[in-house]
Amino acid sequence: MANGFLDKLTAKWNEGKFVCIGLDLPRGKAGKADLQFNKSIIDSTHDLVCAYKPNIAFYEEDLEVLKQTVKYLQENHPDIPLILDAKRADIGNTNEAYAKTIFDAWGFDAVTVNPYLGKEALEPFLKRVDKGVIVLVRTSNPGAGEFQDLQVDGLPLYQVVAEHVSKWGKTCAVVVGATYPEQLKKVREIVGDMPILIPGIGAQGGDLEAALKNGLNSKKQGIIISSSRGIILAENPRQAAQDLHSQIQEILKNV
Amino acid sequence: MANGFLDKLTAKWNEGKFVCIGLDLPRGKAGKADLQFNKSIIDSTHDLVCAYKPNIAFYEEDLEVLKQTVKYLQENHPDIPLILDAKRADIGNTNEAYAKTIFDAWGFDAVTVNPYLGKEALEPFLKRVDKGVIVLVRTSNPGAGEFQDLQVDGLPLYQVVAEHVSKWGKTCAVVVGATYPEQLKKVREIVGDMPILIPGIGAQGGDLEAALKNGLNSKKQGIIISSSRGIILAENPRQAAQDLHSQIQEILKNV
Repeated sequence: MANGFLDKLTAKWNEGKFVCIGLDLPRGKAGKADLQFNKSIIDSTHDLVCAYKPNIAFYEEDLEVLKQTVKYLQENHPDIPLILDAKRADIGNTNEAYAKTIFDAWGFDAVTVNPYLGKEALEPFLKRVDKGVIVLVRTSNPGAGEFQDLQVDGLPLYQVVAEHVSKWGKTCAVVVGATYPEQLKKVREIVGDMPILIPGIGAQGGDLEAALKNGLNSKKQGIIISSSRGIILAENPRQAAQDLHSQIQEILKNV
Repeated sequence: MANGFLDKLTAKWNEGKFVCIGLDLPRGKAGKADLQFNKSIIDSTHDLVCAYKPNIAFYEEDLEVLKQTVKYLQENHPDIPLILDAKRADIGNTNEAYAKTIFDAWGFDAVTVNPYLGKEALEPFLKRVDKGVIVLVRTSNPGAGEFQDLQVDGLPLYQVVAEHVSKWGKTCAVVVGATYPEQLKKVREIVGDMPILIPGIGAQGGDLEAALKNGLNSKKQGIIISSSRGIILAENPRQAAQDLHSQIQEILKNV
C-alpha cells in the first residue's frame, strides 16, 4: 500500500518546499471565527508549504473547527500532507481508539506520538502502513534534557530513542527541536534518511541555518521546518511564510 | 488553596474506597446512547468508588458525551474526584491550552501526563495547586520496559522518573501498572506517601493482592485501583465493582 503521507511529503520536497505551518489557533478565539482564521492562513500560504500541522490542544473546546479545517484542506489542497500534532501514547487498546479517530474519522495523514510506552503500545499507529507516525525524540522546550539527556550506557536517552525508532519501520519520522542543533545533527546520523519534523523556529528561537545544515538528509531533503506562532500571529502571515521559505531557499544554495 | 483532588480522594479513602472505574466507552457506541451508558455505570457504582476516570481517546469523536458525563457527575456526585486520562505532554505554551480546557472548561480534578518533556514543560499543570497531576512512571502495557527499564546510572529509567516526580510538588501522583508488582514496590519506596494510580487490574491481568501489598502507603491508603473493561463491559457492572471493592476489603484485613 502506498504511504499517503510520505508520498505527498516527498512531492512537496521535490518542489523545494520545506515549511510546515502549525495551525495552532490563537487563544481566545472560538467558534466560527476560528475556521475563518484557519481558512485565511491556508488561502494565503498553501503554495509555500510542505505540510500543515494543527495541534489538537488548541481545538479541544470545539473539535468541529479542527474537522472543518481538515475538510477544507482535503477539498481544496488534497496534495498537502496533514499532520495532527497530538503527541499521543497510551496502551494498545486505547491507541486503537486514537488511531481510528485521527486517521479514519478525521482523515489525517500522520500523527505525532510519544515514545515512553514503547513500540508495542504504538502498534495501532505503526500498523497503519498508509499513514505516518512521527515520534518525539528531542523536544524543543528548554527543559527537554531533564530525562532526554539522561545517560544510558554512555548515550543520552534521546539518542537511544532515535536508534529504536530508526528500526520501527519505514512509516516513521522523528521530532527534534531546532532549539537543539547539535542534538539534531546526532539524530540525523542515527536515523539515516528518515524525515525529521523540526519545530522551534520562530517564537521559540531556533536557528534556521543550523537546523538545515544539521537536519538535511543525504538527498538534501528529509526535513519539515515547522513554525506556528511565527507565521499565524504575524501581521502578514503570507509574508512571514514567504520569508521563511525564501530563507530556506537561500541557505539550501550553500549546503 | 485547597487541593480539590487530594481532599476528595482522601475522603473516599477514609470511607474505605479504593476502586476507580475507567469510563472508557465500548467501541462502536456513539451519540446519545454513550451518555446513557455512562449514566447507568455511574448510577450503579457511585457508592463504591474513590474516583471515575474517563479516557479521552474514547470520546474524541463526540466530546459532548465527555462534557455531559462530567456535568452529570458534578451535579449528582460532587464528592467523587474526576480524573481525565489523557497522558498529555507538550511544550509549555501548548500545555497551557490543554490545562485550561481540561481543568477550567471541562472541570476535571486531575489529569494524567507523560514525563518525557520534563517538569518545565508540565508547569501549566503543576502550577494548578487546586488540581492533581498524575505522572506516568511505569505503564501497564507488555512493552513498557523498552525505554522504562533502560539503565540510568544503575537505576531503571522508571525509578529515575519516580525520583524526579517525588520532588515536583504535593499535587503530584504517579501511575504504575498492576501488571508490574515488583516495580510498584520500588516506586512506593521512592515516592513516599504520594498517591499511586494503578491500572491493569481486570482485562490486563494484574494481580490485585500484590498491587495492594506493594502499593499501599504508610497510612494503608494512597492507592487508586483502576479497572475499566473489567467493570464497564461486565454483564452486571454493579456486581463487578462490588466484587472488586469486596476483594480489596478482604485483602486489607490482612495487610
